[in-house]
Amino acid sequence: MTETSSPAVLTHLDASGNARMVDVADKRNTLRTAIASARVRMSPQAYGLLNAQANSKGDVLNTARIAGILAAKRCAELIPLCHSLPLSFAGVDFQPDDYTHSITVTATCRTDYKTGVEMEAMTACSVAALTIYDMCKAADKGIVIETIRLSYKSGGKSGEWHNP
Amino acid sequence: MTETSSPAVLTHLDASGNARMVDVADKRNTLRTAIASARVRMSPQAYGLLNAQANSKGDVLNTARIAGILAAKRCAELIPLCHSLPLSFAGVDFQPDDYTHSITVTATCRTDYKTGVEMEAMTACSVAALTIYDMCKAADKGIVIETIRLSYKSGGKSGEWHNP
Amino acid sequence: MTETSSPAVLTHLDASGNARMVDVADKRNTLRTAIASARVRMSPQAYGLLNAQANSKGDVLNTARIAGILAAKRCAELIPLCHSLPLSFAGVDFQPDDYTHSITVTATCRTDYKTGVEMEAMTACSVAALTIYDMCKAADKGIVIETIRLSYKSGGKSGEWHNP
Amino acid sequence: MTETSSPAVLTHLDASGNARMVDVADKRNTLRTAIASARVRMSPQAYGLLNAQANSKGDVLNTARIAGILAAKRCAELIPLCHSLPLSFAGVDFQPDDYTHSITVTATCRTDYKTGVEMEAMTACSVAALTIYDMCKAADKGIVIETIRLSYKSGGKSGEWHNP
Amino acid sequence: MTETSSPAVLTHLDASGNARMVDVADKRNTLRTAIASARVRMSPQAYGLLNAQANSKGDVLNTARIAGILAAKRCAELIPLCHSLPLSFAGVDFQPDDYTHSITVTATCRTDYKTGVEMEAMTACSVAALTIYDMCKAADKGIVIETIRLSYKSGGKSGEWHNP
Amino acid sequence: MTETSSPAVLTHLDASGNARMVDVADKRNTLRTAIASARVRMSPQAYGLLNAQANSKGDVLNTARIAGILAAKRCAELIPLCHSLPLSFAGVDFQPDDYTHSITVTATCRTDYKTGVEMEAMTACSVAALTIYDMCKAADKGIVIETIRLSYKSGGKSGEWHNP
Repeated sequence: MTETSSPAVLTHLDASGNARMVDVADKRNTLRTAIASARVRMSPQAYGLLNAQANSKGDVLNTARIAGILAAKRCAELIPLCHSLPLSFAGVDFQPDDYTHSITVTATCRTDYKTGVEMEAMTACSVAALTIYDMCKAADKGIVIETIRLSYKSGGKSGEWHNP
Repeated sequence: MTETSSPAVLTHLDASGNARMVDVADKRNTLRTAIASARVRMSPQAYGLLNAQANSKGDVLNTARIAGILAAKRCAELIPLCHSLPLSFAGVDFQPDDYTHSITVTATCRTDYKTGVEMEAMTACSVAALTIYDMCKAADKGIVIETIRLSYKSGGKSGEWHNP
Repeated sequence: MTETSSPAVLTHLDASGNARMVDVADKRNTLRTAIASARVRMSPQAYGLLNAQANSKGDVLNTARIAGILAAKRCAELIPLCHSLPLSFAGVDFQPDDYTHSITVTATCRTDYKTGVEMEAMTACSVAALTIYDMCKAADKGIVIETIRLSYKSGGKSGEWHNP
Repeated sequence: MTETSSPAVLTHLDASGNARMVDVADKRNTLRTAIASARVRMSPQAYGLLNAQANSKGDVLNTARIAGILAAKRCAELIPLCHSLPLSFAGVDFQPDDYTHSITVTATCRTDYKTGVEMEAMTACSVAALTIYDMCKAADKGIVIETIRLSYKSGGKSGEWHNP
Repeated sequence: MTETSSPAVLTHLDASGNARMVDVADKRNTLRTAIASARVRMSPQAYGLLNAQANSKGDVLNTARIAGILAAKRCAELIPLCHSLPLSFAGVDFQPDDYTHSITVTATCRTDYKTGVEMEAMTACSVAALTIYDMCKAADKGIVIETIRLSYKSGGKSGEWHNP
Repeated sequence: MTETSSPAVLTHLDASGNARMVDVADKRNTLRTAIASARVRMSPQAYGLLNAQANSKGDVLNTARIAGILAAKRCAELIPLCHSLPLSFAGVDFQPDDYTHSITVTATCRTDYKTGVEMEAMTACSVAALTIYDMCKAADKGIVIETIRLSYKSGGKSGEWHNP
């Protein structure tokens, strides 16, 4: 595992403190991967309904997966200073946990480009989690999306990074 | 405060367990509000940089605000079973907390329409939080977005609801 | 069933033959429904694979359904002279036919607005059909989408219409 | 003409039957072309009006062409498991047939990328056909879009393919 | 003609100077119209080519018209603090002026809603003008878009307004 | 400075005068830059309000900057015959001029691709200018956006070009 020290500045602000996109013209294309996760915690009742349905069809989770993949592809429209880039892969998976009545959403994105895909992975799991919220909110408006975070990143100058 | 009991079914699945949009043709237009929040927790270093810049210009938070407002307006493109609706208002505010090195994002949406704006508010604060992550990730890739949740909702048949 | 005679002009061209949007400012809101269908015909092999998978999960059809619903909501971005309008419902259903190795896609849209939702229904079933093509094309690039057509329409001045 | 045999699986489903995007990270960029077509068949009256106008201005067909080109560029937003890619060309042409009162729409797409552009071509001719429907539906709601299909594809591992 | 005096504040900033959307929940629906214009001035050579083509086909201007109409419908995605609203009409017209080698673009938008459509008209004529630039830039990269301005507005509390 | 003579045809029309996208399949990737500018002229009162607020917060200009950057990334969705391309940079800057009560918007775009980014820069400064109009129009509906033009372009076969 390689890890670079954090810069002492915010790269998305210029010298005058104005928002700016990082210029990636001089960066090389490298294979880059990012994995992010989010946890959706709900009431036992909502969790039971989700799984009752999921047992027969899985449509809630497939709908959330499709929403997440579509969001990954449109990340640069949502996050102002992100670069549009050609994703070679975007995937979303789900891990239910009966004990905490929660679903962990994991999103993986890959590209062969000049800049990383952390935001694509973060956006994909956020939108997948929001879709689960939407489809289950009739049973529990208090569902919480917790702990959206980057868990892994590779490629580019800074190399591999694991969330400790 | 009025609160209805939760239904025993997921309204976004039909009798066969297939995903479906709720038909709101027969619902009345009423004034509806939803408020959602998210907390973005970062390292002391990143938080320091954010506030150093913010003191002079506030461009990170304004960029996040604009991203959140734009996302609220495009919620129905992101969340598959949401209805397109004319928002009368979408606003995003920020509350820094020096003690926990975190920013709390609050999004408020309003409409005079047949269906609620919970998803618009949830989406706005998620995308605003993701934008803060994006603009500060050079200083801390491990920033966590935590506790995205609905805090208030009014209007429609179910009336007022406060997250307990 | 009420049916008006067709006008002798194309309403989407002005007197000089230029493309134009119809001005609906003076039309009344009425409840409007449109139903459209498309048939996706594939090789026996592809049809077999689709159903083998569908038996366990149905993800191809749910993905196509979600794509169709999202497309209905974005119809006015795709079809230049369509009006943006608030859909109260968009739904997509599938009817497999083992004998012809085909899936019939049916899309239903509803609104309470000044103009009809034929294009929303036509677009929803087209995009759902294209999604089936996409997900099955590895097994049969020659899949044909045939007979996309409006089957029913109600509401507005012209009232109910059934495709004969 | 080179043609590979079809795989015995649907590449857009993973081993558990879940929808997934194909990972193209390891594919090489090659020049790829796809051509798709759709036929729009209408009543003699509608066809007459279309051609009467078209004789002087051609705005219906140009509007449909522009809609088709724009849709090709946004294909990955519509078709969930498609990859965003940089099209080097998207074109739409029309062939009227007086005998059957129909217009054949042909869309050609090209890229120099890791994955094919079949869906871009299929989507372009579908949306162009839907636009013709929209602009002529006042004269004939029963217009049928028939036989949307891929007619040609080249580039990539599977080489050239002609629809037999 | 009724005209109110301008407010002494910028309505799109709150008391702390933060960007905010105006809350229109309490405004009444009224019929609103806005007309905006832009002038595209080019070299005699480019103007000659545009008109040579336009004489036979008019595809440059129709393409610009369609781009303008589509942009009007997506105005709220582009202009951060604009409200999404259902346009009842969006139209774009062109007035060539041989003497100055220029095209004047006029855009008209209408709605029956709580807020005006100035930005929709301004955006439509800007994007139509940009499209003319794009299609003629091979003949003259120095084409200038000049004097984009609102010329007329009616409806709402402030009533009718003509640009003096 | 290298400059080629203008072609005697409009490259965005084919031999029959139909709109067409230029096929860039055979062009080489080169580093390309484009700079465009727009001037927003307003009443002394509006200009005073803008600067009063800008002195403390700058949110109007940051909002316009973000709108411009987002529009650059979506240029190919707005301008029908533009190619989607991966921007390596999009930036928007502002130069106030107290004497003429105007703000000059400058947009810079860069890519390493087969086609230029003039339209991305032109679109970015147009949308940034429209956003300033939107946020200041309550103080002056008569604000004029004047002189949107390309000022510089480099890269590709035609090399460097300065607007004289």
